[in-house]
Amino acid sequence: MAVFCTRVDVPLSEGVDMADISAEVARAVEESGIRNGVVSLFVEGSTGSLTTIEYEPGVAKDLKRAINRLAPPGEDYEHEKAWHDGNGHSHVQAALLGPSLCMAVRGGKVAAGTWQQAVVVNHDVRKRTRRVHVTVIGE
Amino acid sequence: MAVFCTRVDVPLSEGVDMADISAEVARAVEESGIRNGVVSLFVEGSTGSLTTIEYEPGVAKDLKRAINRLAPPGEDYEHEKAWHDGNGHSHVQAALLGPSLCMAVRGGKVAAGTWQQAVVVNHDVRKRTRRVHVTVIGE
Amino acid sequence: MAVFCTRVDVPLSEGVDMADISAEVARAVEESGIRNGVVSLFVEGSTGSLTTIEYEPGVAKDLKRAINRLAPPGEDYEHEKAWHDGNGHSHVQAALLGPSLCMAVRGGKVAAGTWQQAVVVNHDVRKRTRRVHVTVIGE
Repeated sequence: MAVFCTRVDVPLSEGVDMADISAEVARAVEESGIRNGVVSLFVEGSTGSLTTIEYEPGVAKDLKRAINRLAPPGEDYEHEKAWHDGNGHSHVQAALLGPSLCMAVRGGKVAAGTWQQAVVVNHDVRKRTRRVHVTVIGE
Repeated sequence: MAVFCTRVDVPLSEGVDMADISAEVARAVEESGIRNGVVSLFVEGSTGSLTTIEYEPGVAKDLKRAINRLAPPGEDYEHEKAWHDGNGHSHVQAALLGPSLCMAVRGGKVAAGTWQQAVVVNHDVRKRTRRVHVTVIGE
Repeated sequence: MAVFCTRVDVPLSEGVDMADISAEVARAVEESGIRNGVVSLFVEGSTGSLTTIEYEPGVAKDLKRAINRLAPPGEDYEHEKAWHDGNGHSHVQAALLGPSLCMAVRGGKVAAGTWQQAVVVNHDVRKRTRRVHVTVIGE
């Protein structure tokens, strides 16, 4: 049994923006030498999130629209009344999607579908470099 | 410390459809011989998801309705314009729910509530056998 | 490699109510002696959930409102027709948010953002002490 830790820093535009980090995750698994176990991803910060999608421009747009419907940018937010940083909706969106994702590792590869990519999402109203912590655990 | 890997293949009807996989997860934990740690579940494919519910017909129906409200089947999706496979909403629904679930293992059992079952969801517009990778880690 | 298991019991008011459990999680990581790996959280029961937020009263209120929009308390639920316990919406809300959260541990600390707290949510219609299982894995 072993654990391997690394991280990926992903520059993203103002939200909702997202990027495919599957190649970076695959590289971490390879570097770890771990054949069977899990790769756990965690995004630092309360206005980022993680999930998997078929990463093509259509799905990305559809998902952004759905996310903006969960917590629309134009509404009144209590967070704004105290902090005035314009990102009340970003906090709610990120909390609903969640900051963690845990994928299976089998035979030294991530056991995801061919059309299933790991994505990190920036919900904030300004450009952010989102830091994703990658932990591979197994043997 | 040890890791135990297996998988469960679950035939499901066109989405939103779901099945209780708690018995299969319990069996994997038992087979692993691991007493304390976690059992990590990951569904392969970008139109499947995992969560826990009280698995009874009423909650299942209520959850389906809420999922179809997050990304309604009848709307226009950008994914459709390029791919014409009718499952634009399926991709969005699955991304919002998420493909992973990680439950605690204590004393050789999954530490879930009595009325809390692990379920795999098919969001796709056709029947799919959803593959769930099960990884037990602990000692 | 080692695994460390503990739990946190959090008394919460009727839902949507939530509490910051970051201090308890940090203490578990410290007690474990594990420097690098993950801390996995799992809430027992089908009307509780876990996520991270910037824990301040504004965001908490905004998130509660968004959660109540996902599955409004006032609607008709199939779960009610059989069980009459008034918490049909609670089940749906909890299933959409999800019962698990897995955070990175680096240098003996949880690698969360400064303004990113782990929270446990009670969605039930009555006071509940939510039990969160905490599993630290790493070395």
